[in-house]
Amino acid sequence: MNKNIIKKKIYYHDTDAGGVVYYANYLKYFEEGRTQYFETKGIFTEELLKEGIAFVVAKAEIEYKKPVRYKESIDIITGIEEIRNSSVVFYQEVFKGKNLCCRARIVVVCVNKNMKPIRIPEQIKKLWRALE
Amino acid sequence: MNKNIIKKKIYYHDTDAGGVVYYANYLKYFEEGRTQYFETKGIFTEELLKEGIAFVVAKAEIEYKKPVRYKESIDIITGIEEIRNSSVVFYQEVFKGKNLCCRARIVVVCVNKNMKPIRIPEQIKKLWRALE
Amino acid sequence: MNKNIIKKKIYYHDTDAGGVVYYANYLKYFEEGRTQYFETKGIFTEELLKEGIAFVVAKAEIEYKKPVRYKESIDIITGIEEIRNSSVVFYQEVFKGKNLCCRARIVVVCVNKNMKPIRIPEQIKKLWRALE
Amino acid sequence: MNKNIIKKKIYYHDTDAGGVVYYANYLKYFEEGRTQYFETKGIFTEELLKEGIAFVVAKAEIEYKKPVRYKESIDIITGIEEIRNSSVVFYQEVFKGKNLCCRARIVVVCVNKNMKPIRIPEQIKKLWRALE
Repeated sequence: MNKNIIKKKIYYHDTDAGGVVYYANYLKYFEEGRTQYFETKGIFTEELLKEGIAFVVAKAEIEYKKPVRYKESIDIITGIEEIRNSSVVFYQEVFKGKNLCCRARIVVVCVNKNMKPIRIPEQIKKLWRALE
Repeated sequence: MNKNIIKKKIYYHDTDAGGVVYYANYLKYFEEGRTQYFETKGIFTEELLKEGIAFVVAKAEIEYKKPVRYKESIDIITGIEEIRNSSVVFYQEVFKGKNLCCRARIVVVCVNKNMKPIRIPEQIKKLWRALE
Repeated sequence: MNKNIIKKKIYYHDTDAGGVVYYANYLKYFEEGRTQYFETKGIFTEELLKEGIAFVVAKAEIEYKKPVRYKESIDIITGIEEIRNSSVVFYQEVFKGKNLCCRARIVVVCVNKNMKPIRIPEQIKKLWRALE
Repeated sequence: MNKNIIKKKIYYHDTDAGGVVYYANYLKYFEEGRTQYFETKGIFTEELLKEGIAFVVAKAEIEYKKPVRYKESIDIITGIEEIRNSSVVFYQEVFKGKNLCCRARIVVVCVNKNMKPIRIPEQIKKLWRALE
């Protein structure tokens, strides 16, 4: 499976008073991972928006395995698990060295201006499938 | 099932450039909902911390149904779905009037100082069960 | 001077690994304070937006006096210090009981669609001045 | 004056429903800028914490000049304006290409475990002064 990796360092604004990365912030890292993954495939979501096509998150399943702390460095890994008619399932992970800290399955749906699911444009499917 | 409701108004800091509440922020509202729920049951997590007992999120399954926008008001609803030996499963929802916007199942695990799962103290289980 | 007060409780998502409220988050509380203050004066910024009028922050001077911690309650106080031709100067404070924790002077400018400063509409000035 | 530059790309989580970077988030970028600047000088604040020495923000003066939008790239520039007995004044800017978008003067105070200002340790002053 083709994957995208981005690196990130943890700052105070990522953490909470428990001394670890706040649980909602992993969804920010996963957003960054998917955006980078789209771009490496030549898919620029802001251009699609002009045509009234958007990709929105419909579902997220997240497992928290190990905490990440201030100043630690993480790898955010993004891959595609499945391409459906109007949605894509991303599989995403956060690693600290060799330790899996968090993993998620994120379902992103292709919608029109009225937020109704539509078929993913064929040229986009092709770009993704080429490297599946 | 016994439930807790808190109300919240959406400000700019809750939203993103898509014009709607950013998908990670629902986890903040759910944190607030669970904390309030704990307190209505007489459970103060900061006191448990002094004894080395913490409740950490191990799993979150979130479904995004309808967007919420700037200045809209939401109800955050929190209930307990299941009490296990060392974890509790919360069922949480965000409503905008009668419209379900987001719902989640959040698994919270009771851990010791070394982040190892431990049995939930019996007096806490009782407090929860009394109103299940 | 006429003032608006809102109360808020501090959750994990407000704090950082230093155990206290993260310094950027006070600007979120101040946004909430100003928005509430506008509304108590009958000024709904989202309606002004339809006419192409927006209020944007041009300057913020913040002093951090005392830390605020998890589960503590704060009062966010908002008042108007000065009304100018195209801007308003807000004076805002965060108190924990009788302790001043943070105070700020925030300059908000009235702009048109092209982000150019314009005179504050006379009916809005009147609403503010009535209670100055 | 010696300066540190870091690059950053803007994601949805940085923006608000106004379509631009939320005003509080610049303080996150400035935190990242100062932390990187400390490290390029060989100052690791997490090690100082073990000795009970912390650097906390006491004052921030921020001017917002131009908005930054989704997918745009920014340069975060950090320099030292003045080194005092117990505080350092940072001068920080956010540029989008050649356009200044935001600038700030941030006063960081050296404190002990009781949050009382103390003299900045001499070896740290030296590290900073060497490249002033």
